[in-house]
Amino acid sequence: MPQFLDFDQPDFEQAFTALLSAKREDSPDVDDTVAEIIANVRSKGDAAVIELTQKFDRIALTPDTLRITAAEVDAAVAEVSDADRTALELAAARIRAYHERQLPEDAQWQDDAGATLGWRWSAVSAAGLYVPGGLASYPSSVLMNAIPAKVAGVERLAMVVPTPDGVLNPLVLLAARLAGVDEIYRIGGAQAVAALAYGTDTIPPVDKITGPGNAYVAAAKRRVFGKVGIDMIAGPSEILVIADGDNDADWIALDLLSQAEHDESAQSILITTDKAFGRAVSDAVDARLETLERRAIAGTSWRENGAIITVPDLATAAKLSNRIAPEHLELCVADVDALSAQITHAGAIFLGQWTPEAIGDYVGGPNHVLPTARSARFSSGLSVLDFMKRTTLARMTPDALRAIGPSAERLARSESLEAHGLSVTARLRKLND
Amino acid sequence: MPQFLDFDQPDFEQAFTALLSAKREDSPDVDDTVAEIIANVRSKGDAAVIELTQKFDRIALTPDTLRITAAEVDAAVAEVSDADRTALELAAARIRAYHERQLPEDAQWQDDAGATLGWRWSAVSAAGLYVPGGLASYPSSVLMNAIPAKVAGVERLAMVVPTPDGVLNPLVLLAARLAGVDEIYRIGGAQAVAALAYGTDTIPPVDKITGPGNAYVAAAKRRVFGKVGIDMIAGPSEILVIADGDNDADWIALDLLSQAEHDESAQSILITTDKAFGRAVSDAVDARLETLERRAIAGTSWRENGAIITVPDLATAAKLSNRIAPEHLELCVADVDALSAQITHAGAIFLGQWTPEAIGDYVGGPNHVLPTARSARFSSGLSVLDFMKRTTLARMTPDALRAIGPSAERLARSESLEAHGLSVTARLRKLND
Repeated sequence: MPQFLDFDQPDFEQAFTALLSAKREDSPDVDDTVAEIIANVRSKGDAAVIELTQKFDRIALTPDTLRITAAEVDAAVAEVSDADRTALELAAARIRAYHERQLPEDAQWQDDAGATLGWRWSAVSAAGLYVPGGLASYPSSVLMNAIPAKVAGVERLAMVVPTPDGVLNPLVLLAARLAGVDEIYRIGGAQAVAALAYGTDTIPPVDKITGPGNAYVAAAKRRVFGKVGIDMIAGPSEILVIADGDNDADWIALDLLSQAEHDESAQSILITTDKAFGRAVSDAVDARLETLERRAIAGTSWRENGAIITVPDLATAAKLSNRIAPEHLELCVADVDALSAQITHAGAIFLGQWTPEAIGDYVGGPNHVLPTARSARFSSGLSVLDFMKRTTLARMTPDALRAIGPSAERLARSESLEAHGLSVTARLRKLND
Repeated sequence: MPQFLDFDQPDFEQAFTALLSAKREDSPDVDDTVAEIIANVRSKGDAAVIELTQKFDRIALTPDTLRITAAEVDAAVAEVSDADRTALELAAARIRAYHERQLPEDAQWQDDAGATLGWRWSAVSAAGLYVPGGLASYPSSVLMNAIPAKVAGVERLAMVVPTPDGVLNPLVLLAARLAGVDEIYRIGGAQAVAALAYGTDTIPPVDKITGPGNAYVAAAKRRVFGKVGIDMIAGPSEILVIADGDNDADWIALDLLSQAEHDESAQSILITTDKAFGRAVSDAVDARLETLERRAIAGTSWRENGAIITVPDLATAAKLSNRIAPEHLELCVADVDALSAQITHAGAIFLGQWTPEAIGDYVGGPNHVLPTARSARFSSGLSVLDFMKRTTLARMTPDALRAIGPSAERLARSESLEAHGLSVTARLRKLND
C-alpha cells in the first residue's frame, strides 16, 4: 500500500515533510575503489582500461580493439527491425527539432559610454557520453544525450558503453549512429570515465562527460569534475500526477507505474482533489501490478515510496507540487493552463490527459534527462546549453575609458589592488597628456 | 624571472604542455573537518553556528544577533565616502544593465503532429551568497554575485559574511544594499554554508549558494551540492595577454601584474609576436615590482607561474590561447576582431589596448566570476541563467498521440519498460474505439 495523505488532516504537514525528506536511495560508498581505478588509468592508460575490462566484462581487448569499428556497428545495426528503426528515427528527428530551438543567440551592443559589450556562445570541442551496459542500456538515453551535443556543435562526441561478454546492443548502436556519435569504445565503469577525462594513448580526452551510470560511474564523475565538466548526478526517477476526478483511473495508474517500474527507489505520487478517484487509482495500480512484467520492482517502489494525496483544491495541489519540485509533472485537470501557470519548480510538465509521461521519455521532443531529488528547485534538464559555453566581450574606446575608468581606479584602491588601479591610471594619463 | 618560451624552439611543445599542466595550488585536505562542521550544524542548528563563530571570529552571538540589522547597515554605509559610493553605484548600474540582457525567453510552438511544445524559465526562489571576510572581502564580488540573482528574479537573497572581532566592512554592506540583498548574517566558514544549505531556526534554507571562499568554504560547497545548487569552485586567477609589438610595455606589465597581485598561485602569461617587446614587458614588470604595494605576492606569482611566449604569428597565438582556455584574455593587436574570431575557449575577452582587464573586474558590465584552471573549455562565467531553471512543456492532442504514440510504444517495448508502453496503449485504444 502506498501512503494515503489528506491535506485536511491535522497530521498532514508532518507526514508530507517526512515524505519530502525520505531518503529513498542508499549510495554505497565506493569512493576509495573509484579513486584507485582513476589513479590506475592515469598512470597506466590503455593497459589499465584493458585489464579492468577483462576483469569486469570478461572480454580480452587490445588497444586496437577498444574501439567498436564502423563495420561492427554496420553489422549490429542490420539486425534492427524496420519497425524499431522507424520508431528510433522518428524519436531522433523530434528530439533534434526541439533542441535546435535551444541554440542561443550571440549579442553585441554599444552602450552610452561608448563601450562595446556582448557575449558569444561556442560549443565544447569534445564530449564523452557514458552509456550503461545490461538492463539500463537505453537507446532513448543515447538520443537524449547525444543529439543536444551535436546540435550544440560538439565536433568530437565519444561514447563509452560496456559490452559484458562482448555482447553488443544493436539499438544502442543504431541510436548512436542516428545521433551522430563519432567514436564508440566498448568500455564502462569508473575506468571509462577516467579514460574520457584524462585520455589514454588510444582514447583522446574530452572536455565534458554526460550520461547515467551506476554508483561507480557517479563517483568517478564527481571525482573528475573540474578536470572536465559533468552533467548532474541523477537520482532515482520520480513522477507527480495532479488529477481531478474526471480522469481514467487506469491511465493514471499506468502513468504512476511507468516511473515505479524503473527502480525500487523510484517514487510515484498522485495529488487529487477527489478522494474517491484516489482510491480508484490505487485499485487500478493493484490490478495492473498483478500482470505487469516488472511487477516486483514496480510493486516495491509503489508500496515503499508511492503516495496518494487528497487536497481541497488545485491551488493547494500547485503549492505542494512546488515543494516537491518533481522531475516529471503530469497535469490531468480541466484547465491545464491555469494550473500550469502556478507551477514554479518542475523538470518537465506534461499537460492534459493525452500526454502520458512516457511520450516525453521517447518521442515528445524535450529532453528526458531531468533534475531529480527536488533539484528542479535550482537546476534544469539536459539541453544544448550544457554543451556550450559563453565568452563575454568588452571593448573600451578612449572616451569610454575616460567615462568609467576613474570609478574602476577608485574601487581598485578601496580593495587594495594597486596594480588593478594603475593599469587604468597609466592609460588615462596618456589620454590626458 | 618568469619562463620564456619560444614557439620556434624544438623543446617548445614539451615546455608548453608542462606550463599547461603545472599544479599551482595545493588544496589542503579539510574534508573531514568540514564534514564534522556540517553534521554539527545539521543537528544543533543555531547553537552550532554560534559556537563556531565564537571560536573562529571571536564574537559572542545569540540567535537574535546572527543577522546584521538594517540599522547596523545604515550606520556602516554612512561611513562610505561619496567618491566610493559613486564609483560603486556606477559599477552596480553597469553590471545590472549588462545582466538584464541575459534574461532568457520562454518558447512555445505547435509542431507538425499537432503537439504543443516549449519551455519556461523561472527563478530560483532563494539564493545564498558567500562573502569572505578579511582581505578577500571584495565589494565588487558582492555586486557580481548578487545583481545577476536579483535580475533573475530571486525573491530571497541571503548573504553571509564573517566579521572577525565584530568588524563590519562598510563597502561590502553598501554593495549588498545596492544589489538588493535581502538578509545578511555575520557568519562564515563551512558553518555558514551548512546553515544556508540546511537551514537553522533563524536562517531559512536556500536553494542555491554562490560566491568565493577559502578551502573550508569550497569543501563545504562541494559537500552540500545536490541538496542545493552551487556555482563553480574557483581556482587562482589567470590572465593571458596577446600583444603585438605596437603596445606600451608598461601598460601590458600592469595588466599582467593585476592578476599576479591577487595571489601567489595566480598566473599571468604574455604571448607576443615580437620577442623584443616581450623582453621590454619583462623589464617593465620588474620595474613596477620595485614599488608595487603587493610586490611580495605579485613577484612570487610572476616568478613561479608567469610566462612570456614568443610566436611567429597571431594564428599561432590563437591556437595556444585556445589550449590555455584562459579565464581573462586581453587582445592588444591591430586587428582585434580578426584575432577574437579565432578564439574558441576563454572566460572573458578584453579587446584592444584601451580595455585593461581591471575594467572588467569593476565597471565593464560583464561578470568577473569566470572559469579558471582551463575550465573555460566547458563552462561559462556567472550569469543570470545560474539563478534560473527551465521547465520543459509538452501537450499532446488526440491526433498528435495517434501520430507519434505508436513509436513510443515500440521503443518502450524494446527497452522492456512495459508500463511505459501501456500508458500510451490504453489511450490509443480509447481513441480507436
